[in-house]
Amino acid sequence: MDFTVPAATQEILDRVRAFVADEVMPAEADFLTRGFAACEPRLAELRARVKAAGLWGPQLPRELGGMGLSLLEHGMVSEELGRSPLGHYVFGCPAPDAGNIEVLHGFGTDEQKQRWLEPLARGEIRSCFSMTEPDTPGSNPTELACAAVRDGDDYVIDGRKWFTTAADGAAFAIVMAVTDRDAAPHQRASMIIVPADTPGFERVRNIPIMGDPGEGWFSHSELAYNGCRVPVSNRLGEEGAGFTIAQSRLGPGRIHHCMRWIGICERSFELMCRRAATRPMGPGESLGDKQIIQGWIAEARAKIDAARLMVLQAAWKIDHQGFRAARQNVSLIKFYVADVMMEVVDRAIQVHGALGITSDTVLAHYYAHERGARIYDGPDEVHKVSVARRILRSYA
Amino acid sequence: MDFTVPAATQEILDRVRAFVADEVMPAEADFLTRGFAACEPRLAELRARVKAAGLWGPQLPRELGGMGLSLLEHGMVSEELGRSPLGHYVFGCPAPDAGNIEVLHGFGTDEQKQRWLEPLARGEIRSCFSMTEPDTPGSNPTELACAAVRDGDDYVIDGRKWFTTAADGAAFAIVMAVTDRDAAPHQRASMIIVPADTPGFERVRNIPIMGDPGEGWFSHSELAYNGCRVPVSNRLGEEGAGFTIAQSRLGPGRIHHCMRWIGICERSFELMCRRAATRPMGPGESLGDKQIIQGWIAEARAKIDAARLMVLQAAWKIDHQGFRAARQNVSLIKFYVADVMMEVVDRAIQVHGALGITSDTVLAHYYAHERGARIYDGPDEVHKVSVARRILRSYA
Amino acid sequence: MDFTVPAATQEILDRVRAFVADEVMPAEADFLTRGFAACEPRLAELRARVKAAGLWGPQLPRELGGMGLSLLEHGMVSEELGRSPLGHYVFGCPAPDAGNIEVLHGFGTDEQKQRWLEPLARGEIRSCFSMTEPDTPGSNPTELACAAVRDGDDYVIDGRKWFTTAADGAAFAIVMAVTDRDAAPHQRASMIIVPADTPGFERVRNIPIMGDPGEGWFSHSELAYNGCRVPVSNRLGEEGAGFTIAQSRLGPGRIHHCMRWIGICERSFELMCRRAATRPMGPGESLGDKQIIQGWIAEARAKIDAARLMVLQAAWKIDHQGFRAARQNVSLIKFYVADVMMEVVDRAIQVHGALGITSDTVLAHYYAHERGARIYDGPDEVHKVSVARRILRSYA
Amino acid sequence: MDFTVPAATQEILDRVRAFVADEVMPAEADFLTRGFAACEPRLAELRARVKAAGLWGPQLPRELGGMGLSLLEHGMVSEELGRSPLGHYVFGCPAPDAGNIEVLHGFGTDEQKQRWLEPLARGEIRSCFSMTEPDTPGSNPTELACAAVRDGDDYVIDGRKWFTTAADGAAFAIVMAVTDRDAAPHQRASMIIVPADTPGFERVRNIPIMGDPGEGWFSHSELAYNGCRVPVSNRLGEEGAGFTIAQSRLGPGRIHHCMRWIGICERSFELMCRRAATRPMGPGESLGDKQIIQGWIAEARAKIDAARLMVLQAAWKIDHQGFRAARQNVSLIKFYVADVMMEVVDRAIQVHGALGITSDTVLAHYYAHERGARIYDGPDEVHKVSVARRILRSYA
Repeated sequence: MDFTVPAATQEILDRVRAFVADEVMPAEADFLTRGFAACEPRLAELRARVKAAGLWGPQLPRELGGMGLSLLEHGMVSEELGRSPLGHYVFGCPAPDAGNIEVLHGFGTDEQKQRWLEPLARGEIRSCFSMTEPDTPGSNPTELACAAVRDGDDYVIDGRKWFTTAADGAAFAIVMAVTDRDAAPHQRASMIIVPADTPGFERVRNIPIMGDPGEGWFSHSELAYNGCRVPVSNRLGEEGAGFTIAQSRLGPGRIHHCMRWIGICERSFELMCRRAATRPMGPGESLGDKQIIQGWIAEARAKIDAARLMVLQAAWKIDHQGFRAARQNVSLIKFYVADVMMEVVDRAIQVHGALGITSDTVLAHYYAHERGARIYDGPDEVHKVSVARRILRSYA
Repeated sequence: MDFTVPAATQEILDRVRAFVADEVMPAEADFLTRGFAACEPRLAELRARVKAAGLWGPQLPRELGGMGLSLLEHGMVSEELGRSPLGHYVFGCPAPDAGNIEVLHGFGTDEQKQRWLEPLARGEIRSCFSMTEPDTPGSNPTELACAAVRDGDDYVIDGRKWFTTAADGAAFAIVMAVTDRDAAPHQRASMIIVPADTPGFERVRNIPIMGDPGEGWFSHSELAYNGCRVPVSNRLGEEGAGFTIAQSRLGPGRIHHCMRWIGICERSFELMCRRAATRPMGPGESLGDKQIIQGWIAEARAKIDAARLMVLQAAWKIDHQGFRAARQNVSLIKFYVADVMMEVVDRAIQVHGALGITSDTVLAHYYAHERGARIYDGPDEVHKVSVARRILRSYA
Repeated sequence: MDFTVPAATQEILDRVRAFVADEVMPAEADFLTRGFAACEPRLAELRARVKAAGLWGPQLPRELGGMGLSLLEHGMVSEELGRSPLGHYVFGCPAPDAGNIEVLHGFGTDEQKQRWLEPLARGEIRSCFSMTEPDTPGSNPTELACAAVRDGDDYVIDGRKWFTTAADGAAFAIVMAVTDRDAAPHQRASMIIVPADTPGFERVRNIPIMGDPGEGWFSHSELAYNGCRVPVSNRLGEEGAGFTIAQSRLGPGRIHHCMRWIGICERSFELMCRRAATRPMGPGESLGDKQIIQGWIAEARAKIDAARLMVLQAAWKIDHQGFRAARQNVSLIKFYVADVMMEVVDRAIQVHGALGITSDTVLAHYYAHERGARIYDGPDEVHKVSVARRILRSYA
Repeated sequence: MDFTVPAATQEILDRVRAFVADEVMPAEADFLTRGFAACEPRLAELRARVKAAGLWGPQLPRELGGMGLSLLEHGMVSEELGRSPLGHYVFGCPAPDAGNIEVLHGFGTDEQKQRWLEPLARGEIRSCFSMTEPDTPGSNPTELACAAVRDGDDYVIDGRKWFTTAADGAAFAIVMAVTDRDAAPHQRASMIIVPADTPGFERVRNIPIMGDPGEGWFSHSELAYNGCRVPVSNRLGEEGAGFTIAQSRLGPGRIHHCMRWIGICERSFELMCRRAATRPMGPGESLGDKQIIQGWIAEARAKIDAARLMVLQAAWKIDHQGFRAARQNVSLIKFYVADVMMEVVDRAIQVHGALGITSDTVLAHYYAHERGARIYDGPDEVHKVSVARRILRSYA
């Protein structure tokens, strides 16, 4: 057992942290008050500089132009990137592209890779992943309504999806659609690439999240697939392999999310401490001299440390023993870390007083836009029940 | 001791509840997705109907065209109105006008009443109350920076305020400004009426709250007073009476807030229960059959009941024994009810899953825009410390 | 709606509070360190003085020598008594006698009343109530194993019970036993009086609660009924009426418990405040100057007030509308008040530091011996589920 | 970074776990119901078998007959031992002997080592550590009242101590006494060995903890030092070195405590799961099928994992970077792990229903006797404040 971070990894982390602090954070104000589109050109520039610095795509295989880090290493980088809502975008590993890249890399044909994966990995196009539906339970993907019907060499896709992140401006969607409703539950659906210019592909709206519909990469759309016709060659993997592929996408995806959340925790913690230390509260006293605030700071520090170790252990386990061995760990961190994050953000806001609910710091953004963390990829409760059932089996 | 609601009061409550459900709630979708301005005409119509129904201004004295209810009665009405974010506006008792009306009614000269109070009470103009400053601690109003300097028969006001609710479109502000920095701490400031068309009165921006700057009545502005010159006759009460007046404004104001929060709790509770009861979770089962959800519902019910009784008792105490006697009660409900509200809203969101964070229900609005409840009018922590100190005095 | 306590009631409360503080509390140290038996003679003396003062049996009908208070009034007295673990015993209304008195009063024959009720009401004998079993779920009393088989004019009772409070030294038990296993679930059992000297009535042990087996009135026994033969005339009410009677016993019993818990809260709160106010923490500073402690005090005050109002409302509702109307209230207070109590006791202990876990204050006694509050009469979770189901029915 | 447990360590852990489960746990029932003295002979036998198995004194240096494990390794062993309240005693590393052994080993003279350390390390005698006083704040040891006055070649010690663990039957105490009240605060006190047969050494009482005074090793005494005269050669280290030595004792001591607490968590977790999995709740259903219970199990699992990783990291840090570097970690685990432990124990009790509060499982023992964990060695709040202040310094 060894908690040392290797020097080479640490050096990468330091460089990433410095770039995020010096270059990415200054771009946040624009993003928070004027929206994603307004700061896109500036972000494009930063992306170029990240590439030049050799820090592009920390999780990407080297053959795709990335750094080829292990999951544990990328987890630690992801924490640094998570310190800004723009970090992952700037370093070429934003959701949902990162997940789509993994899927295309693992299951795509050569042609699919050439056409979709390569420009995606280079950050030249964006993509989205279209699975969740408004009227079927997100926690049970075997009940999807969206269907892809075979017609000659084509699929014709009809259905409605929502919370398709970053669909606004995406070049293509990977859609999860039922290809055989009579198959065994986990073999009903397939993943199919649908270019955004396919007739019948309709972006109904960007869904307002806590009142904010967002735009471009930073948005979650409701989509209608109205008889979208795509060639069968757009399917990823075998027919019916949708869930298997989705599963493979989820494991590392949750690590990425969780380490991003740790980054959010650390950023919020710093803001909280800085505010407490510098806000005067009468002669010679600062807010940080108040015991209630001190209590919050200590509790936050303990919980963030705890959360961080759990995620690193889960990442390490996936790296060394595979996703199956780490299933319980991954479910545990999914709800534990999300909970810690929301509590830390909430307390950091409280320490800021009225300032905390404005867009003058990044905290309000986290409060509003990360609330979904306890819901997407399976709500807390689904993970808790599933962990407990697995545990209880060995006691029956 | 008697927990009966008198029949006459109950009849008013029933009528208010029906109007809110049938007329006000249907206007919410527009408000949530298109903003306040877009639904203002419709709300104007509803206001006319409320007046026609004799339900205008529940807390307003009869001579100002209101219903003249006691604080306890208005508290119960306020709960009903709080079931919609638009309720208080439609019934002529929105913050900050309701507070300003009290102040003008209690401390205004005849001329001030005629010019400002009467149209305000009729809902023909709007007003704002300008006290909080960005750079001085909101919890200690004796340290205000904004100053009104006497110059002949005028005051010249310079300073910066923020979180001035509903300044956007207000006809006038009541501003709290230091008139004698050398006076005893609680006699330093005065309240002065500043018409919005006074030269130097500048609305710097509507502050984005959780990303949403709002507009019109539904907004919180940052204001600059750049040498605003107003006649001394615009002062409310004696010079130096600012805190005394502010204090008188706070007591009933907190009851109004707390009962509005109870209304938010009840609305969120209903949404949670309806969703739980109707969301299918597999054959013959609904989300409400899940024990974790059942636990939340029971806990929410207990806490809302508890919160409601505490607020009613505080209102009753103010009605019968005056605000001084109820000070501890008012501090207790300030933090207890805000906390219950945020927890109930949060759980209602969780029960709705992804839907809960969208603007397709009112929950996301509450989550984002009521977070401030734990901060404004004194953060939770300030109230806790002040209650505890008062209690501990009797044990020393 | 009126929160006034009538003057006559207040006068009773004041007298009770004074007696508890001046006479009962000084007897606690003996009880806590030497046990119940050691202080029984002193308590007998105090009982005599309570009778002389006309304060005996606040809940007892006047014809039984009590004060004949309403449930609401007795609730308030019960709070005062609950300030000492010995209060209810000294004032003639301890569990389980109080409940047994109600049952005998409501369902007993004249002969039963003469033989058992009268000496019990006078405090000359003690009794116990024997329902819970070690191997059948306490939350579902229709599954009892203990059976009473009819044999001529007798019942022969066989079974095992535990958590039979105060069996050690009781003159008789009221036992719940199945008289017809084939009847409808709620008509299977009957209540039968079993004198303690009945052959086959065996007190197996006093169950150690948190390591302390207690003794006499202050104990919970495991009992064996080994072919106990009693005349059929010892049955209370009709055969099969056991559950109906038990139900009638539960409603007021829960109010008594809950108000006793409020008394425990108030006592613990006072101890916490006194310790905080008087424990020096360096020059000129006391523990109560620490903000974390202040936060606890304020939160405790809010929750105790909340809990108290909820219980009073439930008592009032039973008095005026009957137990059926108050069922939801009673379930809500059962878990809410128990939870508040345990939290307040825990924090009071923490404020006392090492002293808090010793028997030098009453807090450790509450911590250990009231933990069961969240379990007996239905665990928290059973009440939560039952409340939620009832609520959800109206939304389906 | 590597989370692997080396095979050799794992083998030790497996052997220890098996011995605890097969030999130590069966001795618990006697301990819980009849007390420590009653099971001492059986424990002596087990100690002999532990020695024979080469598992005695996992933390003891090899030259003292122990296993010489690192702090990290002993931490993991300590978790296994903590699964029974008797584990550490049986394996030769119980508090307070373990700490006294460290102190004697590090600071004792050859003569002191021969006379006290050697038989102590072999488990032939017991000892106690006498620092906390009833009337001076435990969190500030510089304010001790107990004094050792130099008189020729002797010290004469007067003072009162309490919570001196295991004084009942100890051969000697190491007492912390002021030797120079005018010295700098951290140089005022010295540690002095006082044999239990010294005239004036009085064990006033075993303090009842939650009603249970305990006995022998399992007790906490109040002691009076009434003019106890001991030779100056009984002093450990330099005069005035008391705090320095105490500090050195605290660091590893907290790791031992925390890992013992993790053991308690794991034991309680297992009991909770087993009960949930096997308690029938109606046809074909067990308690573990209830979602609320499942939620508790998942949350407990997450928190225990989190707590465990934090303690292991702290132990590793002390092993590799020294105690100074790990100070923040040690403060964090002190309150975080204690809190997790009490929550897990509480929930395990709730899952057991009435059984949980009896002495029929070990849970009630933990509930009562580990509550002190949040108080001794510095209450939670003291650690939180101290962590926060250290953190805030870097933000000022």
